[in-house]
Amino acid sequence: MTSSFADSAFADSAFADSATATATHRGPIALTAASVAVQRPLESGPFRLRSGFWAQRQATNSATSIPLGWQAVRTHGQWDNLLRAAGKTSGAHTGRPYTDSDIYKVAEAHAWDAEHTSSPALARTRLADIADLLASAQQPDGYVNSWFQCTRTPRYSNLPMGHEMYCAGHLIQAAVAAARVLGHTRLLDAAIAFADQLVATFTDEPGVCGHPQIETALIELYRETGRSAYLELAGRMLDRRGRGLLGQGWYGPQYYQDHVPVRDARELEGHCVRALYLAAGATDAYLETGEPALLAAVVRQWEHTVATKTYLTGGVGCRRKTEAFGAPYELPPDQAFNETCAAVGNVMWSWRLLLATGEARYADHVERLLYNVIATAGSVGGDRFAYVNTLHRRGSAMEQGDKAPFRKPWFDCACCPPNLMRTVAGLGHLIATVNAAGVALQQYAAGEADIDLPDGGRLGLTVTTDYPWHGNVEIGIGSAPDRACDIALRIPSWCGEATVRVNEEPASSPGPGYARLHRIWQPGDRIVLDLPVTARWTWPDRRVDAVRGCVAIEAGPVVYCFEDADAPAGTCVEDYTLDTNDPPRVVYRPDLLGGTLAVECTGRRLTDPAAPWPYGPGPSAPSEPGEPVTLTAIPYHRWDNRGRGRMRIWMPACADSS
Amino acid sequence: MTSSFADSAFADSAFADSATATATHRGPIALTAASVAVQRPLESGPFRLRSGFWAQRQATNSATSIPLGWQAVRTHGQWDNLLRAAGKTSGAHTGRPYTDSDIYKVAEAHAWDAEHTSSPALARTRLADIADLLASAQQPDGYVNSWFQCTRTPRYSNLPMGHEMYCAGHLIQAAVAAARVLGHTRLLDAAIAFADQLVATFTDEPGVCGHPQIETALIELYRETGRSAYLELAGRMLDRRGRGLLGQGWYGPQYYQDHVPVRDARELEGHCVRALYLAAGATDAYLETGEPALLAAVVRQWEHTVATKTYLTGGVGCRRKTEAFGAPYELPPDQAFNETCAAVGNVMWSWRLLLATGEARYADHVERLLYNVIATAGSVGGDRFAYVNTLHRRGSAMEQGDKAPFRKPWFDCACCPPNLMRTVAGLGHLIATVNAAGVALQQYAAGEADIDLPDGGRLGLTVTTDYPWHGNVEIGIGSAPDRACDIALRIPSWCGEATVRVNEEPASSPGPGYARLHRIWQPGDRIVLDLPVTARWTWPDRRVDAVRGCVAIEAGPVVYCFEDADAPAGTCVEDYTLDTNDPPRVVYRPDLLGGTLAVECTGRRLTDPAAPWPYGPGPSAPSEPGEPVTLTAIPYHRWDNRGRGRMRIWMPACADSS
Repeated sequence: MTSSFADSAFADSAFADSATATATHRGPIALTAASVAVQRPLESGPFRLRSGFWAQRQATNSATSIPLGWQAVRTHGQWDNLLRAAGKTSGAHTGRPYTDSDIYKVAEAHAWDAEHTSSPALARTRLADIADLLASAQQPDGYVNSWFQCTRTPRYSNLPMGHEMYCAGHLIQAAVAAARVLGHTRLLDAAIAFADQLVATFTDEPGVCGHPQIETALIELYRETGRSAYLELAGRMLDRRGRGLLGQGWYGPQYYQDHVPVRDARELEGHCVRALYLAAGATDAYLETGEPALLAAVVRQWEHTVATKTYLTGGVGCRRKTEAFGAPYELPPDQAFNETCAAVGNVMWSWRLLLATGEARYADHVERLLYNVIATAGSVGGDRFAYVNTLHRRGSAMEQGDKAPFRKPWFDCACCPPNLMRTVAGLGHLIATVNAAGVALQQYAAGEADIDLPDGGRLGLTVTTDYPWHGNVEIGIGSAPDRACDIALRIPSWCGEATVRVNEEPASSPGPGYARLHRIWQPGDRIVLDLPVTARWTWPDRRVDAVRGCVAIEAGPVVYCFEDADAPAGTCVEDYTLDTNDPPRVVYRPDLLGGTLAVECTGRRLTDPAAPWPYGPGPSAPSEPGEPVTLTAIPYHRWDNRGRGRMRIWMPACADSS
Repeated sequence: MTSSFADSAFADSAFADSATATATHRGPIALTAASVAVQRPLESGPFRLRSGFWAQRQATNSATSIPLGWQAVRTHGQWDNLLRAAGKTSGAHTGRPYTDSDIYKVAEAHAWDAEHTSSPALARTRLADIADLLASAQQPDGYVNSWFQCTRTPRYSNLPMGHEMYCAGHLIQAAVAAARVLGHTRLLDAAIAFADQLVATFTDEPGVCGHPQIETALIELYRETGRSAYLELAGRMLDRRGRGLLGQGWYGPQYYQDHVPVRDARELEGHCVRALYLAAGATDAYLETGEPALLAAVVRQWEHTVATKTYLTGGVGCRRKTEAFGAPYELPPDQAFNETCAAVGNVMWSWRLLLATGEARYADHVERLLYNVIATAGSVGGDRFAYVNTLHRRGSAMEQGDKAPFRKPWFDCACCPPNLMRTVAGLGHLIATVNAAGVALQQYAAGEADIDLPDGGRLGLTVTTDYPWHGNVEIGIGSAPDRACDIALRIPSWCGEATVRVNEEPASSPGPGYARLHRIWQPGDRIVLDLPVTARWTWPDRRVDAVRGCVAIEAGPVVYCFEDADAPAGTCVEDYTLDTNDPPRVVYRPDLLGGTLAVECTGRRLTDPAAPWPYGPGPSAPSEPGEPVTLTAIPYHRWDNRGRGRMRIWMPACADSS
């Protein structure tokens, strides 16, 4: 098995002149025909979210978040930096070297949003404005980076921390989105010019970017243009990594995954977003090359990460200073970093692994990330964003700056909000997949899709559900091909006893993974999937030291938490243990947070006084179990809307809990 | 009660011309006659450590650490920076703005070391070299700071992070030490000149330093010189703090204790070393002014810190990025920061509180810090130093740079090693105190002292002991006054059943705190104190989330830990729980670490496989208790000498542990 792309030969496919491109309606990933994917994204446009959880989030994203993002990059220096690079305004560059990427992510958000917003014209205008800006700032050979241009720093002179290729990657992703959704080609021309400059520079020069992102972007540009040079350069970047090219830096080569080659790495280490973007790029490379060693490496890394370095919410990263993974099972809830961008990268990676393998566990993980980090990172109102998504807020100790554990309107390091915007805008592309067997529903949300099947024919689906609050999912068939095909329904791993009926008849007993319904579908057919959403106790593996003896609550895919605002008067969440002998109960609480499902359970109030020295000769459990009281937990993604009180996902269990 | 020093009037005591000063043999704290202290440090020289634990550490400090410290500041830029400030060499300042303080701390270490080293002449030479360097770098008005001078930055233009007064404070402490031990006066002249410049500048200008240290130093300079202006300026600094003078900075005003006035603060917050130095300064101010509100504030803060923000070792600080305190009970062992400098500051503070109150709990805490952080921070060989003193090392995840959890020869930020050196060199001053009633032995170490009693007369003591390994302490009386006086012996809080005999007769039943022996002592009298040192289980308060369900081992004042090097072959410390039904046993192990007391106990090896997802529906304890095996724990301060394996102080207790 060769491990080097440099030896590969790729046919240089015919390349459509981008000036004449029209919208293709493909999503963020448009696999080539030669891809080894087991599942493929929809190519005829996204699943259209019509109501419910994510439709509301998309609507808020359109109406509030994306306009805020646009305004922010215009007023927080990003725009002016590129104007300065273009020589159109004076003054010094402000902010970090990667402010250009904020603009590109906002551009990408506009593009995916235009798929379902009522006013795509606004997106066209914004994209044109950005293309105008870039046209003036971009250098003749395609290079553009406001920081390096404004500071007159030689380009590529600081690959470890310069972020030039990282920014190029976000430009490419934005450009691809704009072309696919709107047929907008000027950004794509700019992106191609920059990519060609990278190809000219780094095909032979052994450089990699300290912040991975260019790998997945170049492969998408290959998919968009058919030009194998981009796939080949991405492959070279992957091959080169892990050989110490980036030096020690501040935090050692692990920080930017330069300590071990991609194919040899057994676990993700270092800066989380970097590691996840790199893993996503490596998975993209597998999808287009079929190299088994690459798939084996990323599957192994994913399994290790999920088994040992992931919080209950799906979030990753416990080292706040370095925004990095800790050691296996180092998962302190109160120091959880769980950066929003890491969740975005994690969704990107898990989604690619789902395409590569067709295994439901990757869609399960996307679901966990969506409801418990992505949904948490943005406020319901769409106007506040989290950088950090902690599992335990203790109080106000030194909570300041970007990394404070609560949502803020904007950040000095503004990577997260626009990353969230582009992800929510493009969510419709994560709902369903197709392959030769038929269609698979990977996520449950009310809406509809007309899905072109690979072998011809079209399947029209309408989904009605109040998921994740209730597990009843009704799927109506509209148009259908005239031959038998699968409709596969993911059975989430949290669900023990799913039932499926087709036209009122019990259907195939759903196993783990997917319920596969195979038949000649007729317009008007109706599938009813029932996934019982009940509240359940969740316990940690004994290896997770930081939450030993604690228990959490989940209901369906949603993690719950306790906030001071719901604690009985005069107490706080730290005063209680949970009595797990009483089962938790889902209740609708119209008075809470404008109406939400909540979970009630029995807590025990502890009143043992704090000791002058918190270590001593007796076992640590208080001698009294405490008075029983009813406690209320809310969905974790709704926390941090009622002041700066304490919050816990993991609560100590009573000593006699079972 | 006025809370402002500015209203105080101090008599300007007669000031001895420093050019004619001779060594006074006083230690780091030389209280004025007017001090309200309940206990006073020895004034006729330190307790002379002759053998055993700390004598060996002092010998290594003399022979290895301090020479390394001298060489380091000569070769790592500190010396050249001051040469540059003097115009005697070219090039740019290197390192952080506070590199001067490294030199001053090395100077102070030389001075205290000269009290007991066989070659004080070397200390004189070093101090003269440093005085020469300062004479050329110091500006005519007394100001000296290599960073501000080399970078031509206006002095005091960055009080939050400039560290000018912090450096001045260390210069003062070094100068006082040099004067008291050796009669060296040139550094004192330089320090006085700088202090006078500070008085001239900041008596009216409302500035404080972002890193406290000048407060305690100015008060010591007041004690040394009798000049009330220094006490008054220290008081102004204390009064001004907590009113937002330093601005928001990177981490908010909490970071440098500028968010709440010193007298109002209920807990220590922000950067640990800053907070502890400030608290030490406030305690010094109380000692010289007797202001009850100040004592109440620092006692309250000490109690809160010890009860809620202190690790079992006495270390503090769990926020690695900011080197800061977390919230109460936020004490993750694997992310423990426990900076060595914080332990130094903590010893300084607790010692001052012991003088202020005479309460044994402060000496208990000094003991805990000495054996479990100070002794841990330096290798037995004296050639490696820890910046961070973690309680749980998991593996090699991103262990790099100054803050990696193991000892290193030196650091980019070199604050800790010379702080350790000056502390170990001056340890003899922390062993005993005096007051009108007599002498109190605060720490147990083999050695001797001839102690001048405040009301005249001298008590000569010779202590023979192998403490902390064995609790037998024999105290022989040499010279004695001709009237009755106390010999008070601290009964450590870890000790349940101490016995005391005088000349073979059982003596007063030792209560908590001190056994006070009052009599007319005769030369040849012999006191035998027995403090049974046995291994014991220690459990955390239920509020310490991160070690819930875990247990640790202590024996006497020493905390023990488990290292991979001692785990049965093919396993690591993470594979075991402890069975606390079997008591732990102290054993001498000649084969370990060149011979050490160790603790053996029963562990249970767990072999349940790791799950693909570490959260699930069952309670977290493994269903099988595991095979019993004998495990070995070593003194925590001896860890990190056998490779980079895992280490734990807290181990999970078996489910059926009692």
